[in-house]
Amino acid sequence: MPILFRQLTICGIGLIGGSLALTARKHKLVERIVGLGRTQANLDIALERGLVDFATRDASEAAHGADLLMLATPVLTFPSTLAAMVPHLPANAVVTDVGSVKGWVVQQVEPLLKPSMSFIGVHPVAGKELTGAAAADESLFVGRRVIVTPSALSSAEAVQKIETLWRATGALIERMPPATHDALLARASHLPQIVASALACALADETVEGRWAAGFGAGGLRDTTRIAASSSEMWRDICLSNREAITGALRLYRQWFERFEQAVTASDEIALNELFARGRQMREQAG
Amino acid sequence: MPILFRQLTICGIGLIGGSLALTARKHKLVERIVGLGRTQANLDIALERGLVDFATRDASEAAHGADLLMLATPVLTFPSTLAAMVPHLPANAVVTDVGSVKGWVVQQVEPLLKPSMSFIGVHPVAGKELTGAAAADESLFVGRRVIVTPSALSSAEAVQKIETLWRATGALIERMPPATHDALLARASHLPQIVASALACALADETVEGRWAAGFGAGGLRDTTRIAASSSEMWRDICLSNREAITGALRLYRQWFERFEQAVTASDEIALNELFARGRQMREQAG
Repeated sequence: MPILFRQLTICGIGLIGGSLALTARKHKLVERIVGLGRTQANLDIALERGLVDFATRDASEAAHGADLLMLATPVLTFPSTLAAMVPHLPANAVVTDVGSVKGWVVQQVEPLLKPSMSFIGVHPVAGKELTGAAAADESLFVGRRVIVTPSALSSAEAVQKIETLWRATGALIERMPPATHDALLARASHLPQIVASALACALADETVEGRWAAGFGAGGLRDTTRIAASSSEMWRDICLSNREAITGALRLYRQWFERFEQAVTASDEIALNELFARGRQMREQAG
Repeated sequence: MPILFRQLTICGIGLIGGSLALTARKHKLVERIVGLGRTQANLDIALERGLVDFATRDASEAAHGADLLMLATPVLTFPSTLAAMVPHLPANAVVTDVGSVKGWVVQQVEPLLKPSMSFIGVHPVAGKELTGAAAADESLFVGRRVIVTPSALSSAEAVQKIETLWRATGALIERMPPATHDALLARASHLPQIVASALACALADETVEGRWAAGFGAGGLRDTTRIAASSSEMWRDICLSNREAITGALRLYRQWFERFEQAVTASDEIALNELFARGRQMREQAG
């Protein structure tokens, strides 16, 4: 494959940024990789593992020469990070990200760029239990969806190059508008997170006759609340940056929760059977 | 260990009844095991695997000589099953069950027994993904909770013997009133089921711009809806027989769900952080 970019600078060499770096290097898709980070310990790991050629905590130094800049820090930090870097980026730089919301990112990022620059929003839908450069894994994206959301500042050429880069990871590339992405992920990812966290909250200190109720759960409770262990800061940020779509998803969920509530209260045998059967069918369809 | 009962008759030789039979036989806690079932195919498996000495589809035949009768069919079938068997049971028979609700069972079962008989409600809190005699597994209960709920017709001697029987499986025995059991399980088991099934229902046919939203979920959606694949008939019956406690658990959950809803709608950064952090703490405590 031809070289796509001369210098890829990744802001945040964690699980996602680090894993992408491994693929870019393996397939020689970029000449040089620079990592920008906050903690020296993580940057040292990135250097030791060969994820980056050069590591720095200085935004202007990292921006210098980057014809591809990848934002891989928490999304709410994008505007400040980018504002510090834009003056030092090449005029034709391509900026991309790996955030899990897209409309808000496009809205915040595009006004900060020079008209000669491009922005292409990307969301690799991949697991995030582990964090940091130590967790970077070349096979992380194999068979996973990577959603690309072209917007006003996305040049056709830059979209092609970004998709080529991600395709090399073994991911399945899908293109859609930012708003479509946000509505889909609000339902498939952000809603399950809130449903699970609300359940964990409800049982956090719930006792019956002095016994901690959650202690009586088996595999079902464990599975249903597993993702409640995720980073609270990350989910706070997702809720703040995808408010409208998440509100819609919560409304959808509430309707179904209330149908269960009514069926239980009314001992409605037929409705209960239909509701549980519908849930079961969804699982069979999801595979 | 001494022999506890001369004849154990199990109504429903499935995962739970069959697994208990394996332990009872291994430790020679009963002299003879009889299986009552509906389908000959499952009874044949029970015979082949040596779970029972004798298998029948006839309730009166199965009742004959049973100084211990274990109900291991869906709970709503207990009254009719028991009514057909009581006239044929020895006068001093001990009746027990393995149902996942207890108050309703005690209320239904005790009036059907003769005053000389005993009833001891039991709920082994163990996984139920697999079903049938083929799934019986001697190690199923090791380290699991088995809740014993003595009630008006539970003689102290019979409680001791039933607890000895279950202790032999490697389970942790815990005694509590039926109502306490029902309130705990409504929170730790029945609530997660409804939360998961309602999520699966909400996403069953939800699309955005022609794309099936659930198809964009990753591990989080999969885990959170996994138990929605459970038997709809079983969960309908649990809802019908533990209505009051489940209604209370749903009310508790709704309060927390609404706090998330309000925090998202108001973009309340502090509340969101606290809510997700509380959920995370519950998971850490649950281990």
